[in-house]
Amino acid sequence: MTTIPATALTFWFEPASTYSYLSAIRIADLATAAGVAVAWRPFLLGPIFKAQGWTTSPFNLYPAKGRYMVRDIERIAAERRLAFRLPQPFPAASLLAARLAVALDGHPHLPDFVRATYLASFADGRDIADPGVLADVLGRLGLDAAALLMRAGGEPVKQALRDNTEAAMACGVFGAPTFTASDGELFWGDDRLEQALAWQQRITNHIATN
Amino acid sequence: MTTIPATALTFWFEPASTYSYLSAIRIADLATAAGVAVAWRPFLLGPIFKAQGWTTSPFNLYPAKGRYMVRDIERIAAERRLAFRLPQPFPAASLLAARLAVALDGHPHLPDFVRATYLASFADGRDIADPGVLADVLGRLGLDAAALLMRAGGEPVKQALRDNTEAAMACGVFGAPTFTASDGELFWGDDRLEQALAWQQRITNHIATN
Repeated sequence: MTTIPATALTFWFEPASTYSYLSAIRIADLATAAGVAVAWRPFLLGPIFKAQGWTTSPFNLYPAKGRYMVRDIERIAAERRLAFRLPQPFPAASLLAARLAVALDGHPHLPDFVRATYLASFADGRDIADPGVLADVLGRLGLDAAALLMRAGGEPVKQALRDNTEAAMACGVFGAPTFTASDGELFWGDDRLEQALAWQQRITNHIATN
Repeated sequence: MTTIPATALTFWFEPASTYSYLSAIRIADLATAAGVAVAWRPFLLGPIFKAQGWTTSPFNLYPAKGRYMVRDIERIAAERRLAFRLPQPFPAASLLAARLAVALDGHPHLPDFVRATYLASFADGRDIADPGVLADVLGRLGLDAAALLMRAGGEPVKQALRDNTEAAMACGVFGAPTFTASDGELFWGDDRLEQALAWQQRITNHIATN
């Protein structure tokens, strides 16, 4: 793992998560404006849902909630002039995308890759389970797709992603996106992003002035 | 049922619901400022959770989510200078409080009763399952507690509450608070209250100018 600044806000994201998409698109600009560093940390919801006894997304298990989620995101996306469609199948199999994000840990293009992957899925409706789709995303960013896909399939990356998911659970993460401040304070959901940044900003400013 | 203005925003609330408390305290002022009428409509989450296969609140079924909910509301309540504690037991048995709200349907003091009941539970930690607590709340508002408690135990009120819960499910309600605009648009959660009011305001203004 890259060294994360002691005062970073950790952004826990899941490539298949609709609300993570909303946050991934805007977190970098908002964090820059707030003077807050962000640690982008991919994890998988599957094992966390499984531990709660769920075999799939709660948006599939509870249809009224699933229909509402789509409408809620349509409204928010329209306000933000952002495209949105629910990919099929939903949730997408996000393992490879998450592993690639781990493989890009510390790389300056990690946020670009994450944003482009979300847009491929939720704006363009492409299947991010398909290595060809992800190779295309990597290639458009000028990254070496073949090398990264090979690295993503290696044991160190696989283990690092399992570690991320376990670390997420240990922090109290139960959904995505989640933001954890450097003091452990946890915020869940795109609608708590501003609050999370303000929290981290107070910590950062406090350290800077002491 | 009282006649609800065709352009009202319906506020679906559950007396045991923590996030409904947050909305109940602020909806009247925000709605007045927005020029939006509000129809206060109590319902019960129990039957809706049961239909989803849950035997209690998801905040009890999923402890990480329950712990987060408490912290999330503590932060929001602090920002709004509002007291908050989780009543014991949680969730409170809300049947009688919901029936009293139905019995007060159309009464100008309904919002006052609902706010005072939430404060008794979430600020003062009193058990709203206790008829004595609710009689006290009613008495402090100058309402005839004995008469209202008797009315709340009558079949018409019981049936009206069952009807409310069924109407909520038919509208797509799966949690509380929920806001439904007069065109059927649904908003879930205290953090969507502003959006719901803006939506209803557009409908109301459109009707007023046509």
